[in-house]
Amino acid sequence: MFETAELGREISKAEFEGLVPEIRARLLTAQRALRATSHSVILIISGVEGAGKSGVVNRLHEWLDVRGIETTAFWNESDEENERPRYWRFWRRLPPRGAIGMFFGSWYTKPIVDRAFAKKSDATFEREMQRIVSLEQMLVQDGAVVLKFWFHLPKREQARRLKEKEKRSRKNWAFIPDAADFAKRYDRFARISERAIRSTDTAAAPWHIIEASDARYRDLTAGQILADVLENLGSSDTEHAATNAARESSGDSPAPSVMATIDLDSSVDRAEYDERMPRLQAKLGGLTWKAWNEKRSTVIIFEGSDAAGKGGAIRRLIAPIDARLFRTISVAAPTADERARHYLWRFWRNLPRAGTITIYDRSWYGRVLVERVEGFATDAEWRRAYREINEFEEQLVGHGVILVKFWLHIDPDEQLRRFREREQIEWKKHKITDEDWRNREKGQAYESAIHDMIAHTSTDIAPWHLVPARDKRWARLEVVQTVVKVLKQALK
Amino acid sequence: MFETAELGREISKAEFEGLVPEIRARLLTAQRALRATSHSVILIISGVEGAGKSGVVNRLHEWLDVRGIETTAFWNESDEENERPRYWRFWRRLPPRGAIGMFFGSWYTKPIVDRAFAKKSDATFEREMQRIVSLEQMLVQDGAVVLKFWFHLPKREQARRLKEKEKRSRKNWAFIPDAADFAKRYDRFARISERAIRSTDTAAAPWHIIEASDARYRDLTAGQILADVLENLGSSDTEHAATNAARESSGDSPAPSVMATIDLDSSVDRAEYDERMPRLQAKLGGLTWKAWNEKRSTVIIFEGSDAAGKGGAIRRLIAPIDARLFRTISVAAPTADERARHYLWRFWRNLPRAGTITIYDRSWYGRVLVERVEGFATDAEWRRAYREINEFEEQLVGHGVILVKFWLHIDPDEQLRRFREREQIEWKKHKITDEDWRNREKGQAYESAIHDMIAHTSTDIAPWHLVPARDKRWARLEVVQTVVKVLKQALK
Repeated sequence: MFETAELGREISKAEFEGLVPEIRARLLTAQRALRATSHSVILIISGVEGAGKSGVVNRLHEWLDVRGIETTAFWNESDEENERPRYWRFWRRLPPRGAIGMFFGSWYTKPIVDRAFAKKSDATFEREMQRIVSLEQMLVQDGAVVLKFWFHLPKREQARRLKEKEKRSRKNWAFIPDAADFAKRYDRFARISERAIRSTDTAAAPWHIIEASDARYRDLTAGQILADVLENLGSSDTEHAATNAARESSGDSPAPSVMATIDLDSSVDRAEYDERMPRLQAKLGGLTWKAWNEKRSTVIIFEGSDAAGKGGAIRRLIAPIDARLFRTISVAAPTADERARHYLWRFWRNLPRAGTITIYDRSWYGRVLVERVEGFATDAEWRRAYREINEFEEQLVGHGVILVKFWLHIDPDEQLRRFREREQIEWKKHKITDEDWRNREKGQAYESAIHDMIAHTSTDIAPWHLVPARDKRWARLEVVQTVVKVLKQALK
Repeated sequence: MFETAELGREISKAEFEGLVPEIRARLLTAQRALRATSHSVILIISGVEGAGKSGVVNRLHEWLDVRGIETTAFWNESDEENERPRYWRFWRRLPPRGAIGMFFGSWYTKPIVDRAFAKKSDATFEREMQRIVSLEQMLVQDGAVVLKFWFHLPKREQARRLKEKEKRSRKNWAFIPDAADFAKRYDRFARISERAIRSTDTAAAPWHIIEASDARYRDLTAGQILADVLENLGSSDTEHAATNAARESSGDSPAPSVMATIDLDSSVDRAEYDERMPRLQAKLGGLTWKAWNEKRSTVIIFEGSDAAGKGGAIRRLIAPIDARLFRTISVAAPTADERARHYLWRFWRNLPRAGTITIYDRSWYGRVLVERVEGFATDAEWRRAYREINEFEEQLVGHGVILVKFWLHIDPDEQLRRFREREQIEWKKHKITDEDWRNREKGQAYESAIHDMIAHTSTDIAPWHLVPARDKRWARLEVVQTVVKVLKQALK
């Protein structure tokens, strides 16, 4: 999830100064239009300590017309607040229709902090997240746009900032409560925050994770998402405008996308491959019997670019596994039986029995990839699918299923080379169709879809493994090795 | 909640036989129409032990075309099922579009039973309910109608049935697992079931609580709701047909309504009143100071028929309370400030500080009463308000607020008499408006709205107190006495 906000995106001072006049003009125009509507905007500013949340708030104040914003920093509770149910402090600050309420801190803060310091149980935390989902849905149904920003910093960057701050001014630093404590607990916070985001990333009120290492990129991205949302709101005036608007925004999309982090030059020579692969496969064979004995089942899914070599990787993976222990499911267009039910039905029904393995060649992620890009799923359908898929995978993992997700990646040039090769070689001709060529033309749309998929569904409990696949040997080794590693960790 | 299913409603054999041909014809026609749609129907049959759930299933099989129904009794889990995540058994039985899946037992059974036998914690139970809300919403969004029946028996009736069954055949009885256990735990089951219903009573998949003491009434009501829903489904064909259809149905509505249980002849003579009221008021005064010392705040709401005497009752209630301790809020048409926000905002902002009391003359229930009947709220808005209100009240009670809800009731004749009287007496004239007369004409619509309100929002944590108010003295005594009783129980 957060890997999509660790890409080192930045904007130069010159570029920033060139872009600011436009974003300011857009924001002011859209804010004026907002006044005439029956919508309010609730802007939630959250994220890791040190990411510069107050910087964002100040910047947005600079860019917007302050007469239409009410900003509240939810810090220590007053006695007035303590005496009422917990949400009272938020209710009293709800912006009226036509205005923007900027919430610096929000209903997310306390549950995350309480859980991080283990003051509340896991179940209570989950219950709290569900309460938030209800609250946000209720507000959105009433016409509010709930816009949620999560500003992210990589661990090392946070540490660097805290240190520097400390150096600059021991005095100021001392006033910021618990900041050092927070830093020490980075990993725990990251895990719990991720879970909060996953549980509340709804179609009605989706999260926007924004990379905060570069302040200019951070502020501009926040401003752009806000402008997108406000503009979209003005243009439509249906009952669901708020929902649609909230769903809009391309803020967390590419340039560069998370795929840029995949090192496609990774390769391994034949000698090394020939030496390592048999050893890995032998280990894998043993581990699958171990899983059988422990009655732990495994689900492995393969997604990837066309011609990235999923089939070849799957063949190497199953080679050492006893045929009684695995099934491979090739996911193509749904059958009549499958179309007659919910899209997840076909995947539920093929879940493995205890101790066995199901390998899906393409998977439920089709909903947010091909179905999104080709328009087979409506906008509302694929957007809410992120949460549906996360909940599905939670149920798998909660039941003890070992889940491994692979994305096999090649670049467009390599793909073209392979397509041409397939056309040349007689026994590979059947593997290339007109559809493949058509898909290729939608490269940018697919790139966005993949990036968003990883942003929303690469989770602590079910991370994506991004595999560079220009070198087939490298990809196959990495696939087998990853499964070996995951099984080893999961089994006793 | 269950009080609306303890009204002794029954249908004579002759009447039943007269009605069956019509309901069968309706069901068969609607079922045929269903086949051509992209909707499936998931019919959940649940309720207390002994309510005759299998009788309902058999009856519906008799009335419907069996080729379009798939019935599953979810009883003991098979080993196949045990080896997969818990919902697998339900997913594999999902009906295809055009068909009806009858679920005898469902995703509700295990969480309720586990909680009743204290095998799972409260937080886990709540988490489970939220999971169900997600699941049902997902299915409904995909075009399914999730129709949920809860068959209810009063405690005494259940005990009688179990006893009789035992007498008739000790042998058969022995095969029904745990039935005696269930009976012993009636109260605990009722409380947990009520909570399950409250947490999952959504606009997308609302509950229908059906009185099951009379088998003919039970079966006919179930058949009628099903027919209503199926017919509604056929008539509309929008994206939200399923949702709308699921929301439809007048199944849990009047004839007689729950108001029939209110004994309007209750009265008390002046001498008794004069003796008891001062004593009760003295107690109340002391208790409110006790609440102040314990920092427990109280919210008391008054709803009732026009001219039922809310104002008079409130005056007697506040007479002994120190003015620093209470506020009364008279709820009329919302101000501009209030209209600019969510309808619950005006109630949130007036919540009492610790130790004090807020008395609302009319309340948030306006959403499901006047706003429903007068069309100020859309269908979707007032239907989802039941859950919103229940969640709001849960937060109040969860924070330690003492919540008391009164419905003051008079019959239409008495109301007419009071209206006329008000017109005659100079200083009462201002109390009667054209609007009152208009409301009166909508008596039946209000009666349904009140009945539904009580069915959905009279909960274990926040029950409605139905007060007969034809005799004003009786009503006033009962109000003060109830508050005294509730405060006494709540305070240390």
